[in-house]
Amino acid sequence: MSTADTSPVLDHLARVLDQRRHAAPEDSYVASLHHKGLNKILEKVGEEAVEVVLAAKDAEHGGERERQAVIAETADLWFHSLVMLSHLGLDHEGVLDELARRFGVSGHDEKASRQR
Amino acid sequence: MSTADTSPVLDHLARVLDQRRHAAPEDSYVASLHHKGLNKILEKVGEEAVEVVLAAKDAEHGGERERQAVIAETADLWFHSLVMLSHLGLDHEGVLDELARRFGVSGHDEKASRQR
Amino acid sequence: MSTADTSPVLDHLARVLDQRRHAAPEDSYVASLHHKGLNKILEKVGEEAVEVVLAAKDAEHGGERERQAVIAETADLWFHSLVMLSHLGLDHEGVLDELARRFGVSGHDEKASRQR
Amino acid sequence: MSTADTSPVLDHLARVLDQRRHAAPEDSYVASLHHKGLNKILEKVGEEAVEVVLAAKDAEHGGERERQAVIAETADLWFHSLVMLSHLGLDHEGVLDELARRFGVSGHDEKASRQR
Repeated sequence: MSTADTSPVLDHLARVLDQRRHAAPEDSYVASLHHKGLNKILEKVGEEAVEVVLAAKDAEHGGERERQAVIAETADLWFHSLVMLSHLGLDHEGVLDELARRFGVSGHDEKASRQR
Repeated sequence: MSTADTSPVLDHLARVLDQRRHAAPEDSYVASLHHKGLNKILEKVGEEAVEVVLAAKDAEHGGERERQAVIAETADLWFHSLVMLSHLGLDHEGVLDELARRFGVSGHDEKASRQR
Repeated sequence: MSTADTSPVLDHLARVLDQRRHAAPEDSYVASLHHKGLNKILEKVGEEAVEVVLAAKDAEHGGERERQAVIAETADLWFHSLVMLSHLGLDHEGVLDELARRFGVSGHDEKASRQR
Repeated sequence: MSTADTSPVLDHLARVLDQRRHAAPEDSYVASLHHKGLNKILEKVGEEAVEVVLAAKDAEHGGERERQAVIAETADLWFHSLVMLSHLGLDHEGVLDELARRFGVSGHDEKASRQR
């Protein structure tokens, strides 16, 4: 991981994921996913995407509880996509850089300008 | 959106998404998605999740090009999940707070400590 | 269900699914799915679709075992889509009629002509 | 494909898919899918699965029109899974045999008994 301060939460999470990757499978959910392999991790990415879709449909006609469920399911989806990136030796920084590039903002530059 | 500095890139992107939500559908891809409605946005979330799965499988036996494709597809997936959150009046901050809560880190606190 | 003999296997399966729908959840996987509700059934449809995708990718570079896994995962996908149809009071006959209509063949007519 | 009469509609569709596989991509949607390759076909399987999920959620609170949409989307899902099987040199008979095996019915035997 580079030294770019892309997101404190995602940076921290990436470090946690990196540490747990090499933990005992029986001690860590993340380690157990890596141990089971890429297909298992991708099954989880797919499952969580469907759960996001279902939660969003329920939020369409629902209230605050249903809206909170969308947040929780999106967190699950992002989390498992971070595990997938970690499994492939990648991380969130490349993803944020790609989003920054597409939307005409340098995360590093903007960050610098905002911290002045 | 709160003033929490959760991620410069995601914060910026959220502002862009919020502005484009109300643009003319013919001028903006984001506006066209909102105009077509929640189902269209969720179809895109589902499609991008499948493209992440396919890219990751190709990266399993591939090289640097295939690994970059995983980054690009994950950016697509996160982007469309941000559009979905925006459509429901939600944003990335709730997702990052949820991830921080689960992983025992306050994004705000950690950010503060790192900027000292 | 009509008396149309669209497929002996699917016809039989539809009758089994219809019977099990009203069984005790603890005695039958199908009953337990109906008891958990539409979202749970749709999660399974989504999961099985992802498993089909993964099995097909593995079959791309694999052997006979990987090809058999594609068959098994497709059976899982079709099975759970049949449970979904049953949950909504629909069945496979409408699906086969729709496929027949699109491909310019009447299942009933063709069936009759082949049994002469 | 064997001579087993598993389903007139699916048998016919399998023959059509087999013929179109070798057609010019510009003349046939099926040929264009095969020409684009397995990933494109699997993207379609994934997309249609999500559309089934969305249609089923809309049917949950909808009327006859929404129920018909579930039938149409399930037909799309099965159709694209048949194209995938064809691309891998497989077909629906293996899937129906697998379903028959799991549910304790021989499609061939049952068919024979019903035609007496």
